[in-house]
Amino acid sequence: MAESTTRNDGRSPGALRPITLERGASLYAEGSCLISAGRTRVLCTASVEQGVPGWRKGKGEGWVTAEYAMLPRATGSRNRRERGQVGGRTQEIQRLIGRSLRACVDMAALGEWTITIDCDVLQADGGTRTASITGGAVALHDACAWVAEKTGAPSAFRHYVAAISGGLVGGELLLDLDYSEDVRAEVDLNVVARENGGLIEVQGTGEHGDFTPEQLSRLVGTAADAIRQLNAMQRAAAG
Amino acid sequence: MAESTTRNDGRSPGALRPITLERGASLYAEGSCLISAGRTRVLCTASVEQGVPGWRKGKGEGWVTAEYAMLPRATGSRNRRERGQVGGRTQEIQRLIGRSLRACVDMAALGEWTITIDCDVLQADGGTRTASITGGAVALHDACAWVAEKTGAPSAFRHYVAAISGGLVGGELLLDLDYSEDVRAEVDLNVVARENGGLIEVQGTGEHGDFTPEQLSRLVGTAADAIRQLNAMQRAAAG
Amino acid sequence: MAESTTRNDGRSPGALRPITLERGASLYAEGSCLISAGRTRVLCTASVEQGVPGWRKGKGEGWVTAEYAMLPRATGSRNRRERGQVGGRTQEIQRLIGRSLRACVDMAALGEWTITIDCDVLQADGGTRTASITGGAVALHDACAWVAEKTGAPSAFRHYVAAISGGLVGGELLLDLDYSEDVRAEVDLNVVARENGGLIEVQGTGEHGDFTPEQLSRLVGTAADAIRQLNAMQRAAAG
Amino acid sequence: MAESTTRNDGRSPGALRPITLERGASLYAEGSCLISAGRTRVLCTASVEQGVPGWRKGKGEGWVTAEYAMLPRATGSRNRRERGQVGGRTQEIQRLIGRSLRACVDMAALGEWTITIDCDVLQADGGTRTASITGGAVALHDACAWVAEKTGAPSAFRHYVAAISGGLVGGELLLDLDYSEDVRAEVDLNVVARENGGLIEVQGTGEHGDFTPEQLSRLVGTAADAIRQLNAMQRAAAG
Amino acid sequence: MAESTTRNDGRSPGALRPITLERGASLYAEGSCLISAGRTRVLCTASVEQGVPGWRKGKGEGWVTAEYAMLPRATGSRNRRERGQVGGRTQEIQRLIGRSLRACVDMAALGEWTITIDCDVLQADGGTRTASITGGAVALHDACAWVAEKTGAPSAFRHYVAAISGGLVGGELLLDLDYSEDVRAEVDLNVVARENGGLIEVQGTGEHGDFTPEQLSRLVGTAADAIRQLNAMQRAAAG
Amino acid sequence: MAESTTRNDGRSPGALRPITLERGASLYAEGSCLISAGRTRVLCTASVEQGVPGWRKGKGEGWVTAEYAMLPRATGSRNRRERGQVGGRTQEIQRLIGRSLRACVDMAALGEWTITIDCDVLQADGGTRTASITGGAVALHDACAWVAEKTGAPSAFRHYVAAISGGLVGGELLLDLDYSEDVRAEVDLNVVARENGGLIEVQGTGEHGDFTPEQLSRLVGTAADAIRQLNAMQRAAAG
Repeated sequence: MAESTTRNDGRSPGALRPITLERGASLYAEGSCLISAGRTRVLCTASVEQGVPGWRKGKGEGWVTAEYAMLPRATGSRNRRERGQVGGRTQEIQRLIGRSLRACVDMAALGEWTITIDCDVLQADGGTRTASITGGAVALHDACAWVAEKTGAPSAFRHYVAAISGGLVGGELLLDLDYSEDVRAEVDLNVVARENGGLIEVQGTGEHGDFTPEQLSRLVGTAADAIRQLNAMQRAAAG
Repeated sequence: MAESTTRNDGRSPGALRPITLERGASLYAEGSCLISAGRTRVLCTASVEQGVPGWRKGKGEGWVTAEYAMLPRATGSRNRRERGQVGGRTQEIQRLIGRSLRACVDMAALGEWTITIDCDVLQADGGTRTASITGGAVALHDACAWVAEKTGAPSAFRHYVAAISGGLVGGELLLDLDYSEDVRAEVDLNVVARENGGLIEVQGTGEHGDFTPEQLSRLVGTAADAIRQLNAMQRAAAG
Repeated sequence: MAESTTRNDGRSPGALRPITLERGASLYAEGSCLISAGRTRVLCTASVEQGVPGWRKGKGEGWVTAEYAMLPRATGSRNRRERGQVGGRTQEIQRLIGRSLRACVDMAALGEWTITIDCDVLQADGGTRTASITGGAVALHDACAWVAEKTGAPSAFRHYVAAISGGLVGGELLLDLDYSEDVRAEVDLNVVARENGGLIEVQGTGEHGDFTPEQLSRLVGTAADAIRQLNAMQRAAAG
Repeated sequence: MAESTTRNDGRSPGALRPITLERGASLYAEGSCLISAGRTRVLCTASVEQGVPGWRKGKGEGWVTAEYAMLPRATGSRNRRERGQVGGRTQEIQRLIGRSLRACVDMAALGEWTITIDCDVLQADGGTRTASITGGAVALHDACAWVAEKTGAPSAFRHYVAAISGGLVGGELLLDLDYSEDVRAEVDLNVVARENGGLIEVQGTGEHGDFTPEQLSRLVGTAADAIRQLNAMQRAAAG
Repeated sequence: MAESTTRNDGRSPGALRPITLERGASLYAEGSCLISAGRTRVLCTASVEQGVPGWRKGKGEGWVTAEYAMLPRATGSRNRRERGQVGGRTQEIQRLIGRSLRACVDMAALGEWTITIDCDVLQADGGTRTASITGGAVALHDACAWVAEKTGAPSAFRHYVAAISGGLVGGELLLDLDYSEDVRAEVDLNVVARENGGLIEVQGTGEHGDFTPEQLSRLVGTAADAIRQLNAMQRAAAG
Repeated sequence: MAESTTRNDGRSPGALRPITLERGASLYAEGSCLISAGRTRVLCTASVEQGVPGWRKGKGEGWVTAEYAMLPRATGSRNRRERGQVGGRTQEIQRLIGRSLRACVDMAALGEWTITIDCDVLQADGGTRTASITGGAVALHDACAWVAEKTGAPSAFRHYVAAISGGLVGGELLLDLDYSEDVRAEVDLNVVARENGGLIEVQGTGEHGDFTPEQLSRLVGTAADAIRQLNAMQRAAAG
């Protein structure tokens, strides 16, 4: 029930935080976007290199990959830089971002170019992986345009993809959790979808409880609606 | 349409592969289970240590964690041992296994003991992560019993948890994919659930396509039914 | 001769680039400053932890240390993240920053607290190490104030320290080199000084030539004058 | 004196433990053998790759190398996976296995192919390195046959090589030590030999005492006899 | 005031320690020099390899690089070998040595050869980095001669480069500090210069105090004079 | 047959190379010895630390361990420093040295002190591991004396241990192989023994052939005789 919860910032359960997409935030990258979602801020840059990794050579297809990192003081207490082993959480997140963003692009149309999306979290208040996807898609759009201009072929970018989190907190379904909500959630869910509403990735986890198929359906449906709003912002940012 | 597909081994779309659970497969471990699912074979051992990691000390609660590895020749071609950096896929899998198995146990009842579930894939033919969860839960059951005997307290094991994969292959919903099906799948899904039908984890990915909320629901429902069969086998194995 | 050179941005040989110091740029850090010097942008955060490293324990003195990193696309082409070995250049730079910033603080007055200054380069156009020192000192000032408030003792911060680069380019003495000037320099110099004009560190290098003691003296003198301007900006930023 | 010792399992001092060689234990490897020696169990797989390491290229000769690892719970208490530095003991063992198995093969006849023997210890009760050699030779035999079939040339496999441990325990000469005997041994010895009785490797160590040349001779002689029995089992396994 | 200080070994403030240069100290290296400065001893070897690193290929120019290490017991207490991460101090030193020695050579005249100078400190009593440069230049001279003989072209070696430390200790300017002086120094300085008096590198640091431009000038001047003595010894050693 | 071979240096088959033991070669180490055997030179230092590794605490016993390394240009071509993974050969050698030197000492008499023997090869011409043992024992002797003086207890050093290599080269039994002989050897052997003639370690390897028990016996016997000469030199060096 909506009345039972007061969210920190007075949002309704199904409302997104204020979101801004600052396209072209980097002087050098072929595409870039600084995304803010509430107090979460992620700088997404897309870097283009000719050629593809060895295992993909000779097929005439491109590749899109992602890296994710947090600045040491993006959070309430300082984290050590991941300068040896990249941690499991980071690996899990950057694999999710990479898979999601590959769904934006027609690899055959891209040809043998590699686009790397770096998602560096400047400030974290929940939802950094979904913000990385949403902002990264804008950077990727511009990098595809850059390749298109270089090669004279049409852009290989096909669909915007965006992502949002949701969860069950105190039994209530909330969208776009901030950090204080995230740590209290019984179930948390990340949904990635295309502009056409097609789902790309759904990850639901119940660390402190289980959930029913019906709850999953409702969460996915609410998230999919929100993603349509994000897609509109992405299009608007791209001008 | 079911007729359109002939599965390698003649199974119907919603059928599991032959599964065996060999409890006590390790001489030394406090709990162990060698699980076979078709040609996939995973040795799951549960090792008990007194105490918990530093960040968890002083709460009187236990901890369950998992590690996952493949023997170099578990697959069709040899893979290098992960003797430096643990790869992203491995990290993602062992985090999933750990989260899933923690849902079996009442950590407060366990007290300050750590149980490590090692899932070593001897032979891989698809579904190694879900087999690891299903087999690992049996090993974990016995390790909890070992702690209970040691401390005189009742076992902290609460629910069996099992897991299964599913996917859309050529547009058809298939359960328990083998490797040849997995590589062709448009969408693949891993579902982890408790004996009561409660979902613990749902991970659906569309690398080669997207999927609708309805397809997700059907896949989750089919998987949940199969998990009930697996739970029965787990109980039977435990004697 | 001044007329022989036209600097990219029309500056005179001894002029600084436009510099801004945005204090409090990080939500969480105990002190922070986003410094821009022309197109170079560095986010400096100061994180406070109680206690000191093992080798320093029991003397009642504090410690200040620094880490330096570049975002992968801070520069014209993407650099790999330093996720194994930290490179020699990075080590050299972060040691310089640490030594320089330690000169700001009375370690006995600080007591057994450690302050870590993270200098993350968001965009690089020359002078990133000197900007890190100048911006880092502002972050350090605020972190010392935070400790002072916590302990009730007066702040251990004693002097602002700032830094600037200079060099001989085409035989001419230039101050505050941008990247295009830096790569052409015969000699480049970094000078770190206190508000009282006392030198803390002088590093002059002639990769493409040598230099005379007289040239060194002139460069150091010019840099020292510029550092006084930076000190004034630091004081102004601190409000 | 033989009467003074009662071995755990009632064996006579010069008797081997029950040994089984299960050829073809891996679905995918070009050669494989699961060897059991008492409670010690090692899965040996031989993987064939075309080409040789860089330092060996262009001579027309092949290469055989070995890797050795223990599953974390192969022993009484859990060992951490060697996921960074490979430990000294592991290095020493896998170098011994590699050298020994190279003596089976005519490298010129093999041609530029590399065969990697992975020896993964599933359960350890002493004698894992010698079991790895004895089982690995069977896997290597089949891998050579696989290459021969591929190339149409005769197999490059020349001699079976097998290995056994021995030691002085309480002053008595024992063969094929189990773990409980191994930790009590004053002297322990590993002998590797060919079917013709020719010695390939002899490693004798006295951590808790020294030994005479005569004791060494007797130990080597007893081991060499036992190796002939192992060679017969290897031939029998190969069918 | 000179009278106020008694140096350990009775030296005057501006005097060097006894220095010996033993050319050809290594049987195998293309150039080598064992330098002793007081109780500091560094073995410098120059190794020649055909070709240059990838980033330098195709320009027809050579490359000179340096590595620096201490034996574990080169100092009063044992240091662990740097067998993982190379420490910051080591990186800083070997970069300084490399930059300094590159100033000896005309890279275009050298052609595509790489010369690596290894500076291994056998015993350390202050001044190891400057001794490495002075001794390394002798090794480099001979390695250039070796290349010249091999190619028939004239040697690419152009100038000897040498280095010395100085500092302010108890307010007094001292040259060539030993370890006991170094730890007490308010300011320490390393100067690298060519035979013509041209400065190659100046690094002055005030960890325990600051220094004036005038003090810097005096230190640099005194060091430059001493370097001329070292250049003479280098020439004499080369016979 | 002795006539059939001319050794490089005209030695007879059973003769040692000229050997010198320079005790006290290091200014700082608690024991040290620079050993030369022909052109092989190894600096052995013994460093004493109070306490023992964690796994050995509380038994009142000491520990002796060894590290082995080559300078990069100890050999005919430059080897990279082992700055990540320590290679298998190094591991194998330093484990052999450690085991051998532990046989010199009564660990209970030593008490909870750790002695680390660093064996750094300055120049290599075969036999570096055996020279390390022979020279390391002298360094260890002096380090035990240092501990004895510190604690007032008698020295824990019991026996000198020395080592020598031998081999079959062209069918002939040779002692103390230099590098050119080592690479041609069909069989090579390292023997470690105590002053009383008791064997500590025997390692025989036939990479290019096999060997008979009789050949092994002869090699061991010849080596044992030579080790008695080395023991005498060790005693003489210790004065």
